[in-house]
Amino acid sequence: MPTTRSQRATAAVAAGAAATMLKLNVVTSAPAPVASAAPTSAVGASASVVGAGAAALAAAATVRPSKRCAKKEKVVRMATATEVDVDTECINAIRFLAVDAVNKANSGHPGAPMGQAPIGYLLFAEEMQYNPEDPKWVNRDRFVLSSGHGCMLQYSLLHLAGYKSVSIDDIKQFRQWGSKTPGHPENFETEGIEVTTGPLGMGISNAVGLAAAEAHLAAVYNKPGMELIDHYTYTIAGDGCMQEGISHEACAYAGHLGLGKLIVPWQQQAAQASKTAEKAFYDDNGITIDGHTDLSFTEDVGKRFEGYGWQVLEVPEGNTDVDAIRKAIKEAKACTDKPTLIKVKTTIGFGSPNKADSHDAHGAPLGADEAEATRKQLGWNYGEFEVPEQVYDTFSKHAKAGAEKQAAWEKVWKEYQEKEPELAAQFKRAVVDRKLPENWDDALPKVTPEDKGKATRLHSQDCLNAIANVLPEFMGGSADLAPSNMTLMKCTGDFLKDSYAERNMRFGIREFGMGAVANALSLDKTGMIPYCATFTIFTDYMRGAIRIAALSQAGTIFVGEDGPTHQPIETIPSLRLIPDLTVMRPADGNETAGAYKYAVERSKNESRPTMMAFSRQAVPNLPNSSVENTLKGAYEVIECADPEIILIGTGSEVGLCVDAAEKLDKKVRVVSMPSCEVFRAQPDSYKSELLPADVPKMSVEAACTSGWGEFADAFVGIDVFGASAPGGTCLDKFGFNVDNVTSCAERCLSGERGVLSNGSQGKH
Amino acid sequence: MPTTRSQRATAAVAAGAAATMLKLNVVTSAPAPVASAAPTSAVGASASVVGAGAAALAAAATVRPSKRCAKKEKVVRMATATEVDVDTECINAIRFLAVDAVNKANSGHPGAPMGQAPIGYLLFAEEMQYNPEDPKWVNRDRFVLSSGHGCMLQYSLLHLAGYKSVSIDDIKQFRQWGSKTPGHPENFETEGIEVTTGPLGMGISNAVGLAAAEAHLAAVYNKPGMELIDHYTYTIAGDGCMQEGISHEACAYAGHLGLGKLIVPWQQQAAQASKTAEKAFYDDNGITIDGHTDLSFTEDVGKRFEGYGWQVLEVPEGNTDVDAIRKAIKEAKACTDKPTLIKVKTTIGFGSPNKADSHDAHGAPLGADEAEATRKQLGWNYGEFEVPEQVYDTFSKHAKAGAEKQAAWEKVWKEYQEKEPELAAQFKRAVVDRKLPENWDDALPKVTPEDKGKATRLHSQDCLNAIANVLPEFMGGSADLAPSNMTLMKCTGDFLKDSYAERNMRFGIREFGMGAVANALSLDKTGMIPYCATFTIFTDYMRGAIRIAALSQAGTIFVGEDGPTHQPIETIPSLRLIPDLTVMRPADGNETAGAYKYAVERSKNESRPTMMAFSRQAVPNLPNSSVENTLKGAYEVIECADPEIILIGTGSEVGLCVDAAEKLDKKVRVVSMPSCEVFRAQPDSYKSELLPADVPKMSVEAACTSGWGEFADAFVGIDVFGASAPGGTCLDKFGFNVDNVTSCAERCLSGERGVLSNGSQGKH
Repeated sequence: MPTTRSQRATAAVAAGAAATMLKLNVVTSAPAPVASAAPTSAVGASASVVGAGAAALAAAATVRPSKRCAKKEKVVRMATATEVDVDTECINAIRFLAVDAVNKANSGHPGAPMGQAPIGYLLFAEEMQYNPEDPKWVNRDRFVLSSGHGCMLQYSLLHLAGYKSVSIDDIKQFRQWGSKTPGHPENFETEGIEVTTGPLGMGISNAVGLAAAEAHLAAVYNKPGMELIDHYTYTIAGDGCMQEGISHEACAYAGHLGLGKLIVPWQQQAAQASKTAEKAFYDDNGITIDGHTDLSFTEDVGKRFEGYGWQVLEVPEGNTDVDAIRKAIKEAKACTDKPTLIKVKTTIGFGSPNKADSHDAHGAPLGADEAEATRKQLGWNYGEFEVPEQVYDTFSKHAKAGAEKQAAWEKVWKEYQEKEPELAAQFKRAVVDRKLPENWDDALPKVTPEDKGKATRLHSQDCLNAIANVLPEFMGGSADLAPSNMTLMKCTGDFLKDSYAERNMRFGIREFGMGAVANALSLDKTGMIPYCATFTIFTDYMRGAIRIAALSQAGTIFVGEDGPTHQPIETIPSLRLIPDLTVMRPADGNETAGAYKYAVERSKNESRPTMMAFSRQAVPNLPNSSVENTLKGAYEVIECADPEIILIGTGSEVGLCVDAAEKLDKKVRVVSMPSCEVFRAQPDSYKSELLPADVPKMSVEAACTSGWGEFADAFVGIDVFGASAPGGTCLDKFGFNVDNVTSCAERCLSGERGVLSNGSQGKH
Repeated sequence: MPTTRSQRATAAVAAGAAATMLKLNVVTSAPAPVASAAPTSAVGASASVVGAGAAALAAAATVRPSKRCAKKEKVVRMATATEVDVDTECINAIRFLAVDAVNKANSGHPGAPMGQAPIGYLLFAEEMQYNPEDPKWVNRDRFVLSSGHGCMLQYSLLHLAGYKSVSIDDIKQFRQWGSKTPGHPENFETEGIEVTTGPLGMGISNAVGLAAAEAHLAAVYNKPGMELIDHYTYTIAGDGCMQEGISHEACAYAGHLGLGKLIVPWQQQAAQASKTAEKAFYDDNGITIDGHTDLSFTEDVGKRFEGYGWQVLEVPEGNTDVDAIRKAIKEAKACTDKPTLIKVKTTIGFGSPNKADSHDAHGAPLGADEAEATRKQLGWNYGEFEVPEQVYDTFSKHAKAGAEKQAAWEKVWKEYQEKEPELAAQFKRAVVDRKLPENWDDALPKVTPEDKGKATRLHSQDCLNAIANVLPEFMGGSADLAPSNMTLMKCTGDFLKDSYAERNMRFGIREFGMGAVANALSLDKTGMIPYCATFTIFTDYMRGAIRIAALSQAGTIFVGEDGPTHQPIETIPSLRLIPDLTVMRPADGNETAGAYKYAVERSKNESRPTMMAFSRQAVPNLPNSSVENTLKGAYEVIECADPEIILIGTGSEVGLCVDAAEKLDKKVRVVSMPSCEVFRAQPDSYKSELLPADVPKMSVEAACTSGWGEFADAFVGIDVFGASAPGGTCLDKFGFNVDNVTSCAERCLSGERGVLSNGSQGKH
């Protein structure tokens, strides 16, 4: 049902087509380089020769000549029919796979893929270096779809490119139970997907991490004439990504690092999802598109990115002007010391006569009728899920070139192994095979109860430095708190623009961006073991990144420092709720070493994340603590064969439990539980022996009590916000002292259950 | 112990002093306005007359002439000794209160206040409109210290300005148990503090909200000649605030709104905390200051803010050039359609001969010796906590002027009540008295079980619109998801640059910024009831804002939409852990109305936050559901006097429990528990009657099971990540179907306890 609005949009598109046919719309903020290396052959079926996407606008698939300008010098030449068709057909094939899959699933987002298809086509059929036969080839270009809801773009591209992970049947199963084509791209479901995206802003931040990994590995391993690591990272981002704060953090960091091989086509939509959505409420289809966009997003993104130190390019007509996109990518590659943002203006749902440029194309199927109308508008004479052979041919030609590149790479790698045996061995172990060295953990420090107690953040510093010495793939840093959470590696320098070979990352006060960058180091699948650190309380700022590390199987090691700052009383319990995240709260030196052993092996061998929380205050070294016991999740610190009561502590409260046990005139077992998750995974026999059902058990943790019912009968904790005062005073006032713990233990012994002390006595 | 580094710093400062004496260092990105309204009298003790802060550098307090340029036309004139002394002494008084308090507490951050003192002085002794006798005067200027760790600045200013909340004894109690001067500013502890700050980036985002509140109230209430609301919002931000993603979100939004009365002196430190901290590791005191700053933060913040649509000014020497700051503030005020960022370069720990410009001045006391040396360097001849009378006089003169302004305002207000009785009544009720209208809740919709079931997000839409009609102080919006979470008010338009009187806020895809802005609407203490909405899962992006709403007593209503998107399985349980936050998960229409009644009254009457999660899928209207029952937190949906088992459900799972109860061949009570927190607050008798200890109880919730041990013996939930498929399929596969619930209930009846179904059966 055409409306005034859609009629205008259609007219505008047609006009745009005419207008863009004769110009090359690349606006640059830097001096334009010499005309790019575009092929000059005017005839031929190769997709790499052509770019007359404007012809996609022909209402029927009739053959007709198209003019294009391939060079700045305005050499206008005639494109053959074949040329036009290949470009057009490839782009439309992407569009209609998306349209058909979303229609079949009866849910999903067709609009973004329809607009982004030309960018995706250029990347996967011309620009990107990949080999579908070996999706894990270390030197592949990385691609991230930051606007992950439009994942049918990525599935279409992987399918056309020949990845076995996405067959045409998989595409037909879009968003269905058990399929390889879920509603957002998942790296652990579908080979060829680098990172899970969907939560906006996270993908572009992952891309920064992937580009950082490339820069680092290239600096460490490349030798003259033997460039083991030399590839680009591309990410398509949308307006939403640009609005999210995490994009600020990560992109400012990328600009700071000068990551020249990061290229971001930003799909600046003429109309944005929710903007036009209000039509439904107001029925205001007379409102201009500008009016919609202006609702919340009027910043000059280009200026902002220039402020970050990026190169900013612009493609004013991204729906049809394939050549302009091609040219911009070339220009992006020519700039080697800055990341590049390419503003590509596209139309959501491009090609749909009644839904283009409107919210209707965003998050709902076009429907059968509109799909048919779109076929007519774009001259697409194929059936549902039908892909012309020459489209497959075009993509496979490029994929084959990728396979040849990998073959050439393998030769270089062979030569490298001969000429650089030592580095080659390290590359093979750490990057290719992704294995830890044997007995690597011998490097971890050990303590005895006789050693002077100190803060576990200092034990953490010892461990981290020990690991840094033996594992060159261990890399990371802190969100501007290194001198407090003690996470600087002494054996290496700062990973900065001119020192990519170093490993201390200076993330700045950018927790969320830090988390996403660190996740990407792991998801790069080049064996890196990333860590990132802040105060425990500020994990709230990066919770989205921690959660997705768990969901998408990134082996990030998150380091938090405990302490009174901002009262992180519910922080650790809330992190324990995240599935597949292991939380560690070590009580002393050996438990800290055990936590690191666990975290490093879990990162490298399983690609799974661990969160470790360390103390600011000194804690004693405990009897029985060891790496081995830590790896059980919980164990007896004070042994007692036939206890009357069991005290369970974590971290800095284990010492308190030991002191309380000494004062109690009873048989007391003290259990340290550095990790609930690890303990939960132990054999039932061990669990019931350590914590027998018929012995009263009381937990003691300076955190909220919720969740302790799984292991204990009575709880000492803090369920209220804290206060500002010296740390010892606070702990005392809120009940973390020997008197209160022993008194609660007596109450537990006499049958009281549930929360016995919740800190409310300390409120003033 | 002077080092090469500190010697150089001292020399640079001295040189700077000489250099800045003769110029007015205001660099603007816009055409400079005509010379400001600076007083021209050359003689007099009034602090508003002078600004020769450069003289603060005199090594002794000897009287000496100083030259300054008060106008662009370079009218150089002699300042009298008295002039110099007042400015200098006021600024130094601020500095030394901070130095002495941190020394006495033996913890805290002296460096930032020492650098920010001139800005603070100008604001509190010259620019700001406030009356210490009535800190809640609605038309006061708002001040936010976004870099909250430097709170001794704010305490010093409040004390000098005459706020009774901060006596000199309170300052001596800095950071002590029970004091009015905690380690970060807390609005609920200390009168005169507008918002709690500390977590970086949040304060500047709150300031955006305060400025938005001003713009809205002014647009709604001001009448020609009767401007009830007409004030500025100032916030001092640091480098850290600028790096945090939330500052991007909120400041882009502020630029979009064109909030001309928001003025942000950004304390750009020559050296930043952690940057120089690495000295400790590297002992590299030869490294230049630039080298330190460059570690992670090299963006052009000014360019970025221009991209947002802000005016950007610069004060190159903020330690001493008080006049330049004064001039910049005037210029900021002259620009009425854009917020203004003033880049003020200051030195951390300014005045300390051995610690200025170094990490040592950041987060640790100067110590007695260095305090003494600093006294010498700045010519401060007073003892600890000693404040010269003329400093108090200067501030109280300004405070008195503020009291006079309020008196004038009261006159206007009286006139307003006569001329605009209707609006005046609304202003009095909503803004001044901050009361809800009687029986306001009659407007809330009611349903019966016979009414067709629908998604609670649609019930929410009904409630929200009903409230919008009767409460003009109800204002808010969504992070670009209004058409999905149904949070648009139909009776009002969009709150935008040219329509500040409207109430639908278009936050954009900026969850964290949205949360902080909404919090500030409540903390403005002008009676506004703010709401903000997203998908429930994305509360993770704004968790920092939700938490601080609870901690700092902001009456924000957070609205989430449930549903399969991104698998929010642990989200609601994790929000329940936050102290003083109430989480509501209504099961039908009446529970939705009850949740809104609770949330609105809690916001307006108690200034406390509520989080509400609504369903995407349709749910039936339940027997017994009512507003009254909802306000008990939990109640019987299916009554049963003598139950064999009790099923406890929340939200969309209550209907499932009802269906399961019908199939079970037992006496079953079904309890709906829309809010654990509200139920927890009920009398013990009610709780034990509803959930008797001796009846087996099983919880059913599509979320992780942790925490349910408080109310139930056995649990049906999901402790694993979900999957991508149609919603009904997912629920079924993960065990949320009648068969599984009845089978688990049978197991519970036969004595099984703990997690009976955790969704792992659905993993593929």
